[in-house]
Amino acid sequence: MEFFFRPRGIAVVGATASKGKGGNLIVLNLKKGYSGPVYPVNPGYDDIEGVTCYPSVSDVPDPVDLAIVFVAAHMVPQVIEDCAQRGIPGVMIQSAGFSETGTNGSALQEKIRQTALKTGIRLWGPNCMGLVDVPSQWIFSTVTPTIWDTGLTPGNVSLIAQSGMLAGAFLIDLMSHGTMGIAKVCSIGNKMDVDENDLLEWLIHDPDTAAIGLYLESLTDCRRFMALCRSTPKPVVILNGGKTAGGAAAAQSHTASLSAGGALVSGAMAQAGVVTADGFYQLADFSRTLGMYAHLSPRTGNRVAVLTYTGAAGIVSADIMDRHGLELSQFSETTLGTLQTVFPEWMPPANPVDMWPGIILNGSKKTYETAMQAVCAEPEVDAVFIHCFAGGFSLEVDLEKMAGTAREAGKPLFCWISGDRDRVYRFQKSAQSLGVPVFREIMRAVECMGMLLNRPQEMGINTDVDANTEADATAQIRRLTQDPRLAVLATNTGELDELVSKQVLKACGIPVVEEKQVTSFEEAQRAAVDFGFPLVVKGMVPGVSHKTESNLVHLGIASDQDLATAVATLQKTLEGRDSILIQKQVPGKIELVAGFVQDPRLGPCVMCGLGGIFAEALNDTVFGVAPLTLADALAMIDRLKCRPMLDGFRGYDPVDKTALGRILVTLGDLGCAYPDIREIDINPLIMHKGDPVAVDGLVVLA
Amino acid sequence: MEFFFRPRGIAVVGATASKGKGGNLIVLNLKKGYSGPVYPVNPGYDDIEGVTCYPSVSDVPDPVDLAIVFVAAHMVPQVIEDCAQRGIPGVMIQSAGFSETGTNGSALQEKIRQTALKTGIRLWGPNCMGLVDVPSQWIFSTVTPTIWDTGLTPGNVSLIAQSGMLAGAFLIDLMSHGTMGIAKVCSIGNKMDVDENDLLEWLIHDPDTAAIGLYLESLTDCRRFMALCRSTPKPVVILNGGKTAGGAAAAQSHTASLSAGGALVSGAMAQAGVVTADGFYQLADFSRTLGMYAHLSPRTGNRVAVLTYTGAAGIVSADIMDRHGLELSQFSETTLGTLQTVFPEWMPPANPVDMWPGIILNGSKKTYETAMQAVCAEPEVDAVFIHCFAGGFSLEVDLEKMAGTAREAGKPLFCWISGDRDRVYRFQKSAQSLGVPVFREIMRAVECMGMLLNRPQEMGINTDVDANTEADATAQIRRLTQDPRLAVLATNTGELDELVSKQVLKACGIPVVEEKQVTSFEEAQRAAVDFGFPLVVKGMVPGVSHKTESNLVHLGIASDQDLATAVATLQKTLEGRDSILIQKQVPGKIELVAGFVQDPRLGPCVMCGLGGIFAEALNDTVFGVAPLTLADALAMIDRLKCRPMLDGFRGYDPVDKTALGRILVTLGDLGCAYPDIREIDINPLIMHKGDPVAVDGLVVLA
Repeated sequence: MEFFFRPRGIAVVGATASKGKGGNLIVLNLKKGYSGPVYPVNPGYDDIEGVTCYPSVSDVPDPVDLAIVFVAAHMVPQVIEDCAQRGIPGVMIQSAGFSETGTNGSALQEKIRQTALKTGIRLWGPNCMGLVDVPSQWIFSTVTPTIWDTGLTPGNVSLIAQSGMLAGAFLIDLMSHGTMGIAKVCSIGNKMDVDENDLLEWLIHDPDTAAIGLYLESLTDCRRFMALCRSTPKPVVILNGGKTAGGAAAAQSHTASLSAGGALVSGAMAQAGVVTADGFYQLADFSRTLGMYAHLSPRTGNRVAVLTYTGAAGIVSADIMDRHGLELSQFSETTLGTLQTVFPEWMPPANPVDMWPGIILNGSKKTYETAMQAVCAEPEVDAVFIHCFAGGFSLEVDLEKMAGTAREAGKPLFCWISGDRDRVYRFQKSAQSLGVPVFREIMRAVECMGMLLNRPQEMGINTDVDANTEADATAQIRRLTQDPRLAVLATNTGELDELVSKQVLKACGIPVVEEKQVTSFEEAQRAAVDFGFPLVVKGMVPGVSHKTESNLVHLGIASDQDLATAVATLQKTLEGRDSILIQKQVPGKIELVAGFVQDPRLGPCVMCGLGGIFAEALNDTVFGVAPLTLADALAMIDRLKCRPMLDGFRGYDPVDKTALGRILVTLGDLGCAYPDIREIDINPLIMHKGDPVAVDGLVVLA
Repeated sequence: MEFFFRPRGIAVVGATASKGKGGNLIVLNLKKGYSGPVYPVNPGYDDIEGVTCYPSVSDVPDPVDLAIVFVAAHMVPQVIEDCAQRGIPGVMIQSAGFSETGTNGSALQEKIRQTALKTGIRLWGPNCMGLVDVPSQWIFSTVTPTIWDTGLTPGNVSLIAQSGMLAGAFLIDLMSHGTMGIAKVCSIGNKMDVDENDLLEWLIHDPDTAAIGLYLESLTDCRRFMALCRSTPKPVVILNGGKTAGGAAAAQSHTASLSAGGALVSGAMAQAGVVTADGFYQLADFSRTLGMYAHLSPRTGNRVAVLTYTGAAGIVSADIMDRHGLELSQFSETTLGTLQTVFPEWMPPANPVDMWPGIILNGSKKTYETAMQAVCAEPEVDAVFIHCFAGGFSLEVDLEKMAGTAREAGKPLFCWISGDRDRVYRFQKSAQSLGVPVFREIMRAVECMGMLLNRPQEMGINTDVDANTEADATAQIRRLTQDPRLAVLATNTGELDELVSKQVLKACGIPVVEEKQVTSFEEAQRAAVDFGFPLVVKGMVPGVSHKTESNLVHLGIASDQDLATAVATLQKTLEGRDSILIQKQVPGKIELVAGFVQDPRLGPCVMCGLGGIFAEALNDTVFGVAPLTLADALAMIDRLKCRPMLDGFRGYDPVDKTALGRILVTLGDLGCAYPDIREIDINPLIMHKGDPVAVDGLVVLA
């Protein structure tokens, strides 16, 4: 990939002297910053913008590592052939008119893909805006050159965007508003060859890049993406467009790529330690925060000191912090004493620190700095949130000094700025260069604090549960493959019935309800004696997996008489098919569901969620990518909205999360061991005195 | 209140010639805009800033309606006396040093309150920043005069803020950034006399004000506030600081005022049709949106057309819309046909409309305008969301023309703008003057669309449920007061036991479980014959309301033998107290809770929420202020997070919401009829075949 990022020479195919056209803008942009030779290619000109022009790619002299192509789509295949022939290793196709335009475009795209496969040439794009490298000031793009006037601020965040217009427009917006500094912006368009994973891999090793943000409408290879993210301590933030039904329909028409199911991809991202953003500015905010604070040693605390010039903002900050899982630090007597030195006597300091009375007494700088030093020295403080005002009220601060104090204390500092437009702008630029994330809205600042302070620490390392590693998973999968009790999975097809499904689950070590298949009332009675009332009586009908809706389930059978009635009713319904199950009724207030699904994009995946009547109403489902480690499974359980219910309260038993986690691990291993398994559903998985028990089960084979 | 807003002359007590001091800034600000006479008062000067100065308030000539006071706190009581003596009807105390500073300050504040009570003089403040009237350009405040340089943009939104610094700082920020136009900003500080309700009442009748936004840390009189909000079609938006535990602690130390419980106030606000904001910018965004679109006839639709220059932003918009209860409009063939005229042939138009290919073919203005006209003519479109870019890529638009098209069609238009900083600023200012709400973030725009399109329509008017009006409530409360079966409520004190509590509920018409108090196994057996198995057997112990935790509840009694065991166990526990209840066991998957609480600030209030094990974990509780109309009660039920569960699915019975609503109405009426009731708890209220049944009940009297 080096030839894309560090080319020794660049050919611009489709260069033109016509002002304002893309083929002209590319040359102008290269002239402004790129340090190597530029070779415009166009048979119609001798020179373009004062640079010697060549009639064809084959005429271009050495060195040339990269061709940037901006010609009509139908001409692109020939250009790629020429580039391959000339020995140019990389081509960036910025022209549009390919798979995003329907059948004809797709055919063109396929044609150049074949050329790439045949020749080994690497293709970036098409339908993209290329690359902007801010520290080097290299712009390989048609992006409007006014970007230079508004100031390209170098930073340590690199962005990858699957959208040409967005990459260009957003970059201009971020740069012009002083929102953040940037290392590289990569616009990958239709990503027919070079994709987000190729770029991510390169950026992971790029010394200019400390954090990576991606806007993607589809993940080319989610498992490779996950592996890359887990391989690096560099934080990765993703905005995954098309997560909802409406968004997904839009994504389909926009980039001819189906977005993988939202919940599934979210689960995969969480599992890989990737931070998820919901919008463009949040993507930028999360990335720049992580770019600034990725180097801080992981903290376990979520306690924040708030320094404000207006109590109201302190109160609103506390309210918003509460919603983002952050707490107000409790100050020690020492800290309170230090604060009191700049406060009037009548005002006992507290957190949030309303500094206004102190500012009136001692001036702004002294009050801010004293407070800053006090809270940075306080062990109960994990992060500091300061409110600044640029535009009067004598509220000047020495941000550089405060940033230094926070840095020395190893505590992340966040800043809310409001005030006069021009002064705010200058403040933002200065904060940016001091490495302090600054925000125009309290909510945005708190969101980023919450993300940083609450993000999961090291992935997959948990001394309590390290018994289950990836190596164990491999061994376990092999064992399952060889287990004779699971032969049915290799020999059958379609849906297994409830009894057989649960026999499979039980053979894997998943706790299932006690049950017996009976053919008569007498057999049912004997089962009742074994199990004890109350019982559940079910009829199994091939192909009917929703038994409740089909009146095939009799709950709460409490006597021989009930049992007789239930068996008789089912026998009538079943018309002689001997498929009645007697189960011990498992009481339990919490019903979960757990399952496995073979996803066309992500492969074997595991699901867990709230079950029963709440399942559809509260939409509480999490996914993971198999095989799972036990730590992965426990992290999935932690992501359930209903997680507080599992901790036990009001006298209910806390749920054995390790047992629940092991069930999820096993479901994943089983699906990996038998690729013909399409789906496994355990619904409900009842928490009985805190222990999960599979009460109904369904295995679906290919 | 007219003398505060339209004074014929103003005395400035504490005026000074010292530059930068508050007493100087007030005079400067008045000189810049106020049209009436200004009378600085200070015995040390002959004139201040070229205006004749008077030694004392009594020397000030007529006309004088208002005194703005900015002297040391200990001097304020005398000044108020002087003003009252001079016959000045209103005083605005901008000095700090009162109740917000502890005991001494509170004593000072009490002293001037007594003067006001005695003399009838009205006091605004203290500890406030006064009033800014933007259309008149009258500034009655110490707010820094640079506010003039950054441009006071008149608008139709008025703001009330219980924070001095905030009101000033936020106003400068909003004005300077071109975020919105403002009618009036009122900073009310400690609101010892003039409070938010006085100002709200005045602003409701102010022709310059179309929408009102409030930042409050406490509500002085929530019921008056609700009544005012219900009395006007002008939209009211509130940011209620101190909603969470952390925020409330901060509010307490900041303004010496306890914030009423968050959920209770939220319920009251929703009941009064008030829109709730979570942060300062959301308060501004909601207010300006409503200021612009309050005049539109209420729409029932939530279908949005999205016009974008980048498909990625369309996808992200659709995702965020989905989270805010908005849908993408489905376009008719006619609309699609019109769109196709500006699209390339290969690109079938869809919503979101990615206009980029059209822009390349036909230019930006033509493409935007054609699309705008098409979607405004489309009956399936309730609102239009356009994405604009200011800063290159030939993306100029004629916003005035598009705003006109939307206005003629009666459809609210929302705009996302990004790009070059200065061009974005000019675009925002121009959109503001065209009456188009414009946002720097997609999320912010979608939030406001969601708020506007999904906000409840006319309050309390619903032809289905109009049988229960406020007059009916009054009649019902009178009936309850006179009901002899409720005599226990007038004669008893403390907790009523479960049996008596439910007899009370039953007498009011609330469905309760069939039950019987028994003293022996034989009586229990007779009840069992009447009710049929399964049964619940409970022991009642005075003062023990959490029976489950005390092992006083035996569920699922299915046989005489079970019954005997349960009764014997309880008899042993109860040690001869004859307080065993036999109840029919009510099956039902959904358990709610309903209740009544006498709140020290809001008076009689009604609660409803999800019950059972989910109650604490999912925190799904709504409140209303009694008496409720049935429409109020149904709106409460609609606000439950678990509402989708009540609609019936998977073969479960839908809940009879009218029956549930009537229970809430009755609980409120009962609490209004008997002011000694502190609390009523129905927990659980089980949905049995869709009908709510009170299974446990507790009434607590004073």
